[in-house]
Amino acid sequence: MTGRILLAATGWDARPWEDELRRNAPGRAVTVYPDEFDPAAIDYALVWNPPAGLLAGLTNLKAIFALGAGVDQLLRQPDLPDLPIVRVVCDDLTQRMTEWVVLQALLHHRRQRAYDRQQAEHVWRGLDQPAAADIGVGVMGLGVLGTDSALALRRLGFRVAGWSRRPSTIEGVESFHGAEGLPAFLARTEILVSLLPLTPETKGILSMPLFEQLSRTHAPHLPVLINAGRGGLQVEADIVAAVRSGVLAGASLDVFAPEPLDPESPLWDLPNVTITPHVAAASDAAAIIPGIVRQIEAFEAGQPLVNVIDRASAY
Amino acid sequence: MTGRILLAATGWDARPWEDELRRNAPGRAVTVYPDEFDPAAIDYALVWNPPAGLLAGLTNLKAIFALGAGVDQLLRQPDLPDLPIVRVVCDDLTQRMTEWVVLQALLHHRRQRAYDRQQAEHVWRGLDQPAAADIGVGVMGLGVLGTDSALALRRLGFRVAGWSRRPSTIEGVESFHGAEGLPAFLARTEILVSLLPLTPETKGILSMPLFEQLSRTHAPHLPVLINAGRGGLQVEADIVAAVRSGVLAGASLDVFAPEPLDPESPLWDLPNVTITPHVAAASDAAAIIPGIVRQIEAFEAGQPLVNVIDRASAY
Repeated sequence: MTGRILLAATGWDARPWEDELRRNAPGRAVTVYPDEFDPAAIDYALVWNPPAGLLAGLTNLKAIFALGAGVDQLLRQPDLPDLPIVRVVCDDLTQRMTEWVVLQALLHHRRQRAYDRQQAEHVWRGLDQPAAADIGVGVMGLGVLGTDSALALRRLGFRVAGWSRRPSTIEGVESFHGAEGLPAFLARTEILVSLLPLTPETKGILSMPLFEQLSRTHAPHLPVLINAGRGGLQVEADIVAAVRSGVLAGASLDVFAPEPLDPESPLWDLPNVTITPHVAAASDAAAIIPGIVRQIEAFEAGQPLVNVIDRASAY
Repeated sequence: MTGRILLAATGWDARPWEDELRRNAPGRAVTVYPDEFDPAAIDYALVWNPPAGLLAGLTNLKAIFALGAGVDQLLRQPDLPDLPIVRVVCDDLTQRMTEWVVLQALLHHRRQRAYDRQQAEHVWRGLDQPAAADIGVGVMGLGVLGTDSALALRRLGFRVAGWSRRPSTIEGVESFHGAEGLPAFLARTEILVSLLPLTPETKGILSMPLFEQLSRTHAPHLPVLINAGRGGLQVEADIVAAVRSGVLAGASLDVFAPEPLDPESPLWDLPNVTITPHVAAASDAAAIIPGIVRQIEAFEAGQPLVNVIDRASAY
């Protein structure tokens, strides 16, 4: 059997995804939302922000494939069928995220924004520069993305620690876990990298009480927050207040709640705050579709699906 | 015997160097230029930009230790005695240089300057982003610094090649060498990293005819020049002309001839050009002095000096 695929991506240009799908699964029936189709004929749904109720109406659906890394919106759908949801795990996405995290960590570590201001005024002046080995970087969230970023930052010489729900072991990365491990993790961290999933437990975790626990060893040029997880992790008013009061020396933010970031938000104009429009790890159709098609083919040949989301813990 | 050391660093604050020297060689006689001293009593000179004629007057000198990575100024001294000159090789300096190079390469690759401009206007718009694997990075100069940068860039996923006078083999890094290898190296390079030493052969090598040979696969956002070698490698008027005409999409420059960069230089205000004040790999006394003291002690115990500069080839 070769099941029929429904592609339903809203808020994105669906065309490159359709093109890749037809290229990688040439013999297979593909329907692209919002074209008309028979809901009972769909076997697999490939989705990003699917309209509410769409998935519930697909009576013969066998599996759902997410096209982007954040699945919290999908999991919040009220009538979400009780079927396997496969997360996207691909080297391209991981590599792009690590590039962005490394870039932002180095921007803060090497005081690039201070040099940018000096350049605008034609000022030639060297600034104090600690070695990476003197800087504690802390990565919250040690999934595929967080682990890869932690290893890349360690290779650049930073003292890296990770924090996650459960204990983890990453070579050369100090491990903290759970609510009880958080204070010690924050107390040794000057560059805080958030790659957490958005769950009821992590919503709003990046807030003033947390920022106040970060190490101030290299204040006033650190500590900083780098968030490329989800916008809902952060309390934006607290970031604004923390940067204005010096609790945070700066931030790099790629995600917001809601998106796009309000043109009136004070975040745009804060010193040492870098805003990017949710592009840290953009899903690339050419990198993601081949893996999904291979998974569907393996599933139809009797293999189990891999990277299925644990819905109880929401990631 | 424990020989006497002369510390002569001009243009820098000599105090941290003196402090580190006294801490690491507590029993040894140390003189700091321009204090008075008997020229015949000096055994070792630790120097950065020593005044002309100073070294020639030290009649019992045994070795000269450079305190920074660039030795061209030292080698140009007219009365430079024919003694071993030991270059500084230290992990700290290498790591700092690699941080700066990686930061600048990612700034260009991830189009951060375009996002900076959008941020200033509160504009939320994603830009096309190739994968690192699609970008050719080329490192000119494969000494300790160039090799470390090449490896770090390769680990981030870039297609990295190196160019040097002599053939080299660095795992995963395509090798080009000599004048005959330069055109092919440039034709596959979109991010050009210069970590060359300044010699009669390399003076002014970073010029319009070279820029015009770079790959334009991802124009107009690449190619770019990143120079952290020496200012004398680059023809600044050609960089200005190349950026203005689009031959280069941008540049990151840490070195200039002369330094500090003239406040009137047009380089300060060019779009996509990042200027830092020769801080890519600042010599850190605490990182460098212990190794020099250990070398002197080993030398006095009969061991040969290591990292002695080959004066014929000037590096």
